[in-house]
Amino acid sequence: MALRNVTGARCTICGRVTPAEPETTVCPHCGGILDIEYDYDYIRSCFRKQPLTERNDPTMWRYLELLPVEGLGTRPRLRVGGSPLYQADALGKELGIRELWIKDDGQNPTASLKDRASAMAVIKAGEAGKTTIACSSTGNAASSLAGNAAAAGLSTFIFVPSRAPKGKVAQLMMFGATVILVEGSYEDTFRISAEAIDRWGWYNRNAAINPYLMEGKKTVSLEIAEQLGFRMPDYVAVSVGDGCTIGGVWKGFKDLYQAGMIDRLPRIISVQASGCCPINTAAAAGTMEWVPQEENTLADSIAVGVPRNPVKALRAISESNGVIVNVSDEEIMAAMRLLGRRAGVFAEPAGAAGTAGVKKAIETGLIEKDASVVSIVTGNGLKDVNNAIRAAGEPMSIRPELDALLEAFEARDIKIPE
Amino acid sequence: MALRNVTGARCTICGRVTPAEPETTVCPHCGGILDIEYDYDYIRSCFRKQPLTERNDPTMWRYLELLPVEGLGTRPRLRVGGSPLYQADALGKELGIRELWIKDDGQNPTASLKDRASAMAVIKAGEAGKTTIACSSTGNAASSLAGNAAAAGLSTFIFVPSRAPKGKVAQLMMFGATVILVEGSYEDTFRISAEAIDRWGWYNRNAAINPYLMEGKKTVSLEIAEQLGFRMPDYVAVSVGDGCTIGGVWKGFKDLYQAGMIDRLPRIISVQASGCCPINTAAAAGTMEWVPQEENTLADSIAVGVPRNPVKALRAISESNGVIVNVSDEEIMAAMRLLGRRAGVFAEPAGAAGTAGVKKAIETGLIEKDASVVSIVTGNGLKDVNNAIRAAGEPMSIRPELDALLEAFEARDIKIPE
Repeated sequence: MALRNVTGARCTICGRVTPAEPETTVCPHCGGILDIEYDYDYIRSCFRKQPLTERNDPTMWRYLELLPVEGLGTRPRLRVGGSPLYQADALGKELGIRELWIKDDGQNPTASLKDRASAMAVIKAGEAGKTTIACSSTGNAASSLAGNAAAAGLSTFIFVPSRAPKGKVAQLMMFGATVILVEGSYEDTFRISAEAIDRWGWYNRNAAINPYLMEGKKTVSLEIAEQLGFRMPDYVAVSVGDGCTIGGVWKGFKDLYQAGMIDRLPRIISVQASGCCPINTAAAAGTMEWVPQEENTLADSIAVGVPRNPVKALRAISESNGVIVNVSDEEIMAAMRLLGRRAGVFAEPAGAAGTAGVKKAIETGLIEKDASVVSIVTGNGLKDVNNAIRAAGEPMSIRPELDALLEAFEARDIKIPE
Repeated sequence: MALRNVTGARCTICGRVTPAEPETTVCPHCGGILDIEYDYDYIRSCFRKQPLTERNDPTMWRYLELLPVEGLGTRPRLRVGGSPLYQADALGKELGIRELWIKDDGQNPTASLKDRASAMAVIKAGEAGKTTIACSSTGNAASSLAGNAAAAGLSTFIFVPSRAPKGKVAQLMMFGATVILVEGSYEDTFRISAEAIDRWGWYNRNAAINPYLMEGKKTVSLEIAEQLGFRMPDYVAVSVGDGCTIGGVWKGFKDLYQAGMIDRLPRIISVQASGCCPINTAAAAGTMEWVPQEENTLADSIAVGVPRNPVKALRAISESNGVIVNVSDEEIMAAMRLLGRRAGVFAEPAGAAGTAGVKKAIETGLIEKDASVVSIVTGNGLKDVNNAIRAAGEPMSIRPELDALLEAFEARDIKIPE
């Protein structure tokens, strides 16, 4: 069934438009990644600000007119989206910026922004009549798929390289995914998963292949806009790995603009790790020709030397007149501490990278001190406790005596507030 | 300033009522734990179902008429409460119960129900004019206090025994708490924290001493009621450690009943670990005289051999004509798997214990198969990855060849869905 609000899927490479079917993946003509396009006149006719504020659904599905789904079906769903946007005055003051907001997307069911894409995958798999979804990933995409599929009663087959951290594998196993450890590289893992998907016809959840997943991710921007009363910030900062998330963030704002819901677009701050920044390197050189890089960063979720969605990422940067910032692991860990201490938000390294980029962009004069900025935290710090320990430092240790406490306070020059 | 909706704080031991001040802790007459009492006639006059559904605030503070606070002040707050209530048909079917709901309170900012108490502590500290809050704890209470206080710009001093798990200490450090490792037992830690609180006059966040914290916890019940359209379930299951949470859960339902918002009360299912169940043991014997026990369970959040709030817990059980269930660690781990696989909810061991209790209560005929049950998940599984690994089992491992995959599926008798 054709979707009333969707006009088709346009190839980001050759520009040709193909019908948007539930199982549409890449361009049938050239293999390029597709982009879902809408009938914005139609959307303008049925999507208005006022009724939106009266909607009771607090999840990403409150924006149904701007999403490529027939309906929500009858399968149970986790509560994805509706994450808090915090006005972070204390942190903003410390960074020296007039207005700072933190969008804490670590407050999703499986604790990352990826839940938005996986929730979409579950709906689209249902439309395609599939009851099994597969992907290859070791990280947040995999755990979000496993969790959202489990809630909906769908099976998942998840291929991970055997070096995958035990904790992430445990999360997958807990959600009942069939987890296949592949004794080889990530390339090997991806290949065998593709063969299996081909053979058994499972629904394919790969953010850079399946164009619908970005439509799920864009809901983070729809929420930011609504939470700010549709008054756009000057900048929106996000960390960048394979390029799907920044692409989704930008798509959300563009869709709102084309639907007449906002009257200007923010500039996107693209933040990568200094040790792995192929997209920012290409963007800085003004080229679409990115070059693979090593993956030297503790921020595992954005340690992507060979990005799978560079086109959408680079276009998000150029179209938004974006800002490019690379941050070191030390700067990421400093941002983790700042987010925790000044905003009460516990971020995983990749989740804090966006805020590290905001800090650096202010310090280096890339953005103005009287600007307004939204920084997206893409994942929860509980996802990666080892790096949290590394970033957080050691506590004092004392004998159980008040004298010892006094000495410890004095030695550390701790002033006692009352 | 006296609160218009609060009449006082009644001692759970001697029954005397004292004024409810922001710094009120235990009974000034006998040292007993206090219970906040309300003017329900007044509340009935200003608290109605209809306006409630029109409130935009999705947090625990939407129930302001039933909470002991002057107002919310101007300090920034994390989004606490408003956690999802999932209709868990697939899990209910597997357990053999007609109607099962999962209240996932692991979806709070620091990933546990304790955020409700800590958010309250932050507001009350503000009313008391305090800018520093202290507690001694190694677990969810400490991390929730550190996170909520950091967001509000308050300082925290947190005393933990030196055996505290590193991950939990890292979370505290990340939120900027001054963490003091005490080289000694938990008793030593508690004593030195009490001495320090006395000496410096910090605000005291100890759930069994500060009566307001339970008023925060009770909001989980207010939400359950509202999410069910004020149609009460037959049973509400919750895991029990020191007794504060079950006390808060019951208080919430009682308050709603007295405010005329619900017309019947659910029975509380009190679930403890078989290896540490002093409250359930006393309840089963029909006595308030509980006996300390060893702490033999992997569910650390409810491993409380010497409960600090037994009176409120035992009254919650007796007043609600409650059901008593003790569950083994194996049963808890099985419930973790069931919650993950059938509902997409990842729970820490103590968080899954309630659901383990529901399962056992059905199997042993303690509750009827045609009952409706709400099971509260009190904390997120990411809090305790080691036990998740223990519970989740090992994945298969293959060479990166399709043949190897086929062999592995066959060896494990895995049917391939399409």
